[in-house]
Amino acid sequence: LKIVVDAMGGDYAPEAVVAGVVEAVKEYDVRIALIGIQDRVAEELKKHTYPADKIELIHAPEVVEMDEPASSPLRRKRNSSITLGVSLLKNPEYHAFISAGNTGAVVAASTVNLGMIHGVDRPGIGIVVPSLKKFSFIMDVGANTDPKPDHLLQSALLAKVYVKEVLGVQNPTIGLLNIGEEASKGTGFHKDAYRLMEEKVDNFIGNVEANEVYTGKADCIICDGFVGNIVLKVSEGLLESTGKLMKREIKKNPLAIIGAAILQFSLSDLRKLADYSEYGGAPLLGVNGIVMISHGRSSPKAIKNAIRATMREVEHNIIETFSKEVSQKITV
Amino acid sequence: LKIVVDAMGGDYAPEAVVAGVVEAVKEYDVRIALIGIQDRVAEELKKHTYPADKIELIHAPEVVEMDEPASSPLRRKRNSSITLGVSLLKNPEYHAFISAGNTGAVVAASTVNLGMIHGVDRPGIGIVVPSLKKFSFIMDVGANTDPKPDHLLQSALLAKVYVKEVLGVQNPTIGLLNIGEEASKGTGFHKDAYRLMEEKVDNFIGNVEANEVYTGKADCIICDGFVGNIVLKVSEGLLESTGKLMKREIKKNPLAIIGAAILQFSLSDLRKLADYSEYGGAPLLGVNGIVMISHGRSSPKAIKNAIRATMREVEHNIIETFSKEVSQKITV
Repeated sequence: LKIVVDAMGGDYAPEAVVAGVVEAVKEYDVRIALIGIQDRVAEELKKHTYPADKIELIHAPEVVEMDEPASSPLRRKRNSSITLGVSLLKNPEYHAFISAGNTGAVVAASTVNLGMIHGVDRPGIGIVVPSLKKFSFIMDVGANTDPKPDHLLQSALLAKVYVKEVLGVQNPTIGLLNIGEEASKGTGFHKDAYRLMEEKVDNFIGNVEANEVYTGKADCIICDGFVGNIVLKVSEGLLESTGKLMKREIKKNPLAIIGAAILQFSLSDLRKLADYSEYGGAPLLGVNGIVMISHGRSSPKAIKNAIRATMREVEHNIIETFSKEVSQKITV
Repeated sequence: LKIVVDAMGGDYAPEAVVAGVVEAVKEYDVRIALIGIQDRVAEELKKHTYPADKIELIHAPEVVEMDEPASSPLRRKRNSSITLGVSLLKNPEYHAFISAGNTGAVVAASTVNLGMIHGVDRPGIGIVVPSLKKFSFIMDVGANTDPKPDHLLQSALLAKVYVKEVLGVQNPTIGLLNIGEEASKGTGFHKDAYRLMEEKVDNFIGNVEANEVYTGKADCIICDGFVGNIVLKVSEGLLESTGKLMKREIKKNPLAIIGAAILQFSLSDLRKLADYSEYGGAPLLGVNGIVMISHGRSSPKAIKNAIRATMREVEHNIIETFSKEVSQKITV
């Protein structure tokens, strides 16, 4: 089992990526192909001790920066770690690709270089968020911001397989994110998506309102990439602002500082709510290959978690399971 | 100054509404026309003492329930407190209408019975949310779920006037809620709205990402009603779930119970983040009359706050100011 990891992706690359990879090869039965600027990555690897046969180094002379346009790996930088790394998956020796780099660039390079699973038109990014039950899976959170109702059906089928196979939830429930519970709610787009999902998706529980995203009402919550991105970022921002407001209040009262110190442990748990790096990155689903997008701020631990989640996808032969599920439900 | 209040609207009506109205007439220089099932409201009023000449009672035999379709006050229940209450605004003696009832029904009844301000095509609901600076105003949060870019421009112009006149912010800044900062981000709809706002809206600061909703980056945040509703409800749900998770964690540790008790005061402040009733309800803007929608769970205090905010709208002659702003910027 060999996974390609983009050594140059993310705000703390290559340091955090290399450290995470080293932890992973020590802990798991996995081999890693680190792709990036060879000298830079080799220098970083020297700081660690690890079983040398488990990490391979592949040179990619270019780096797609975080703020470049999504088309960059396809046009200006065809020798980037993203372009070359994704393309390695065409060789059956390499089983998956992980990057904490430019999300749009990874989506574009994967879509063009790997193609789509038969029956799927557009890729989607899923993320795991904690909930009052355990966790939920939201898809799409940004790959396809202006989808057709069919694309939401496809997302639902893919998400269901992922949650079952990789996250181990038997018979996962699927909900459509909407502004009301009744089938008549939302725009024409949402009503059409509802109808399609009702017809084709096992365990479809109907609409889920946004105040139920974190209650665990549905195992998979399906939405367009624009709305999913808003859900993710508003959650992140709200927790951050709430934290800052709390600190302000606490500073006004010396007794509260003691209270806060006592509570610190639970707060650190709560911060995970909006930090998907804790859950091993966000899978890019629908493309014909296993691709995982990690948060730009990924720590070594997050990279290690992403490798673990990707290993599970490989072990469960997930691309084949996706294809079966989609071909059963969608006539192309 | 006389305001019509829907005595039958909201989960705790008429009790909470009547109690809030009584507090308001004692505290402010305002007269109230309470509209609803006369006997029920009169019975409720008997529990209070108040200056009798400041509260008038108007009979409306029907009640639109919270889960009825939005068209109900226009079709099945034309003698409801919502239909009759809104219609009273055609009489210049009555200056504004407040309801904590069925939001869709209030929007429909107001749109049809009052008509729109010249130059505005569709109404929008705005809400005040607290932010790290002080507060921001988000519009639309649910009236117009599938708008045209023009409608977002109209929302921006109305929101700007409201925030300046009623909330007292000089030169409020306006942002477009989007999934990235650059003008090229989002769907075609968002790019068109961006272009229109850049051209016509003073103090337009460009796109605002969802993680900036609570930082106070923009005084007015403009979005379609679907996305606005998602922002509101995901915030509400996240705070609720976070609170529950905290309680679970705290219960595991006796020391933490002490810490939590000390911190309680700041938590109650933080809950206000997603509770717009604290800010006096959500104005329905764009219709040719002053209409305020209060939260279904409005307490007497929330009703009182809504009355105060509506009084400010009347005092600032807001409908005229809306008309001027819109006619200056939009050629019809």
